[in-house]
Amino acid sequence: MADQSLPEARTPAAPQPREGAAPPAAREGISRRRLLGTAGATGLVLGAAGGAAGYAAAPAGATPLSSVGEDRVMFHGKHQPGITEGLPARGHLVAFDLAPGAGRKEAAALLRRWSDTARRLMAGEPSADGDTGVAQDAGPSSLTLTFGFGHSFFARTGLEERRPVALDPLPDFSSDHLDKARSNGDLWVQVGAHDALVAFHALRAVQKDAGAAARVRWQMNGFNRSPGATARPMTARNLMGQIDGTRNPKPSEPDFDRRIFVPADGEPAWMANGSYVVVRRIRMLLDDWEKLPVKEQEAVIGRRKSDGAPLSGGTETSAMDLEKTDSAGDLVVPFNAHARITRPDQNGGAAMLRRPLSYHDGIDAAGVPDAGLLFVCWQADPLRGFVPVQRKLDRGDALTPFIRHESSGLFAVPGGAAEGEYVGQRLLEG
Amino acid sequence: MADQSLPEARTPAAPQPREGAAPPAAREGISRRRLLGTAGATGLVLGAAGGAAGYAAAPAGATPLSSVGEDRVMFHGKHQPGITEGLPARGHLVAFDLAPGAGRKEAAALLRRWSDTARRLMAGEPSADGDTGVAQDAGPSSLTLTFGFGHSFFARTGLEERRPVALDPLPDFSSDHLDKARSNGDLWVQVGAHDALVAFHALRAVQKDAGAAARVRWQMNGFNRSPGATARPMTARNLMGQIDGTRNPKPSEPDFDRRIFVPADGEPAWMANGSYVVVRRIRMLLDDWEKLPVKEQEAVIGRRKSDGAPLSGGTETSAMDLEKTDSAGDLVVPFNAHARITRPDQNGGAAMLRRPLSYHDGIDAAGVPDAGLLFVCWQADPLRGFVPVQRKLDRGDALTPFIRHESSGLFAVPGGAAEGEYVGQRLLEG
Repeated sequence: MADQSLPEARTPAAPQPREGAAPPAAREGISRRRLLGTAGATGLVLGAAGGAAGYAAAPAGATPLSSVGEDRVMFHGKHQPGITEGLPARGHLVAFDLAPGAGRKEAAALLRRWSDTARRLMAGEPSADGDTGVAQDAGPSSLTLTFGFGHSFFARTGLEERRPVALDPLPDFSSDHLDKARSNGDLWVQVGAHDALVAFHALRAVQKDAGAAARVRWQMNGFNRSPGATARPMTARNLMGQIDGTRNPKPSEPDFDRRIFVPADGEPAWMANGSYVVVRRIRMLLDDWEKLPVKEQEAVIGRRKSDGAPLSGGTETSAMDLEKTDSAGDLVVPFNAHARITRPDQNGGAAMLRRPLSYHDGIDAAGVPDAGLLFVCWQADPLRGFVPVQRKLDRGDALTPFIRHESSGLFAVPGGAAEGEYVGQRLLEG
Repeated sequence: MADQSLPEARTPAAPQPREGAAPPAAREGISRRRLLGTAGATGLVLGAAGGAAGYAAAPAGATPLSSVGEDRVMFHGKHQPGITEGLPARGHLVAFDLAPGAGRKEAAALLRRWSDTARRLMAGEPSADGDTGVAQDAGPSSLTLTFGFGHSFFARTGLEERRPVALDPLPDFSSDHLDKARSNGDLWVQVGAHDALVAFHALRAVQKDAGAAARVRWQMNGFNRSPGATARPMTARNLMGQIDGTRNPKPSEPDFDRRIFVPADGEPAWMANGSYVVVRRIRMLLDDWEKLPVKEQEAVIGRRKSDGAPLSGGTETSAMDLEKTDSAGDLVVPFNAHARITRPDQNGGAAMLRRPLSYHDGIDAAGVPDAGLLFVCWQADPLRGFVPVQRKLDRGDALTPFIRHESSGLFAVPGGAAEGEYVGQRLLEG
């Protein structure tokens, strides 16, 4: 079936190495470029200059792929893909629970299938078994697939002794309104791409691979700006209109790896070069938010809406002056401003790499959009990343009245698979 | 609020004229380019060569907008935008019902607000009243807004005498499974753009403009390929993996205008240069479809999955040989193949311009995706476009077991607004 449904001579696009897989000289430039989200915009010009389309079977007279389609992320590498790459224009999050009776053996076979599918699809090739054809004609479009394990996975597979302490359930937060059916799960998969059909194709392939071994627990869709749509690709805007991600740690910073990834000699050993991801579905109460005058919105956030600069002055990247007062003696950045509370230097150096998606699932019966942020954040240790920041936000964030955490997940995302290896193999076969 | 939230010196992007607004020499080339869906891919190279960003307030060192962001569609013109332009990467469909007590006067004021918002947003400017800022930093990204009137609008506004016969309810089709709550409506708005946040921003602005005059009846989200993601921008693939749109009428064809648009001297006068749109939410039963071997999928459609060529041979654009038989004497294109039944020359020359979106609203409790096609088709007369084709499909389309029409709408979309005019003014004030 796959053979019939796909072009005969499909030459994969030239790979773009990721950190860990790249020659040392290229590493820094590439990972930084991707992290900053400029891959689309920068690559665009390169793509137009480079000219060649991504595969040989393109019809005569076809328009060459731009780098939007042509860009390819490597599956194999030190870390899994989908963590330090720029924000994808389209993404899917999906959690699975192992089927009754499925254990370690079935889980290992599933991770092997998933890894094979990820490697193929990220290279712009069809999946091994009955490809649906939905991604045909498109390039890999920076597709990434990322796989993680939830707390409940370990008891179901007899691997409780290998469960990291970092997977202990997150504490309760008083402002949470969590739907358990849309929280956690045995397994988690993140799909991202710059093309919605490429992303959907990968999601369906992942679901098909699950077969009888696992069932979908929950699934969410999200989006970010399209490459080339903005002159400000450094940081995204969310559906509140606010610039988001200014203070994200950058791979060029000396402590980036230490904060985001488990060390190569870290514990447990199967999590070497891995990371922990916290996923929160954060609904935005847009009808309330949009009624606030911009001045009040800015006081809630602590930054200017137009350009993201701190209310204490400067530009988006200027340091925030936390002590600055106005002529009345009031703090210019209010004590409960969201950006003040979340500053790493206010949280013992806690840092997490946020790589979110906006979501919009239509409008409910009251005419209110079911929309907000699929908050996805990465850290070497959730107890030093997400938890202390969220504790402080929970106690006094001015943003709290305008958002609602509706679901939550915490997953252990192992390091990248080496050639010939599948993701999680060191856990499942070690 | 709007002034505070937006850059001070925002120079709109250079407009790209639409047919009717363009000088005659430029008209054919532009409308054809956009209809074929190549605007993104072609414009990409132009954008990179042209270089200049879309607005003056871009931060120093910012990456210039590519044509993905920079492309602008004109609001004013002979026809409304969003009909002959290429497929948008992201789209929203929303229907409103007038609020109890709201009549012709309130509807006229609403259409005036909507037209002003559409003109501003399509130019990359903020809306007049409390812009949310979500589209800030982005270019217009080929944003289009399109407005239509449903059958029920006319009784509620005392304009029944002006209701076109073409708005008479569509006949019942035996294979329909229509949800009335997600069908029809007094007013219909289509939003399309190549950036998801630009599209969401416009949707929110339209909803805010509705104010107390109208309430959302239903709202749906969809997508198409991103510009530059495919080397085959001529026709799209749908979520079944099938190439879709090969036989769409093209503006270069001599009878294009006659088939798609009400003539300038047509009836009723307020519909001059307008069009009728049929909107169907068509769920795809993907679990069933994907179990079919590709050969059987191709027999259902009548075209090859890989390249869209008719099963009778040739390439995607080759004429279909309806009489050709194989060595066993069987029709090569089966008698109930979808592409055979929908051919205009099998339907008395009926033609409609399809400009669909794929949709995917997550996965239901059974793990089945709520996904398919937001079928949007345009014609001068639904009784000569959609209806005869759907009647034939209803009687014997091989595709019927794999799809389900879940909602339906029919709307009268008046011609484009002239400078200083709002959409529908000739209906509401004529």
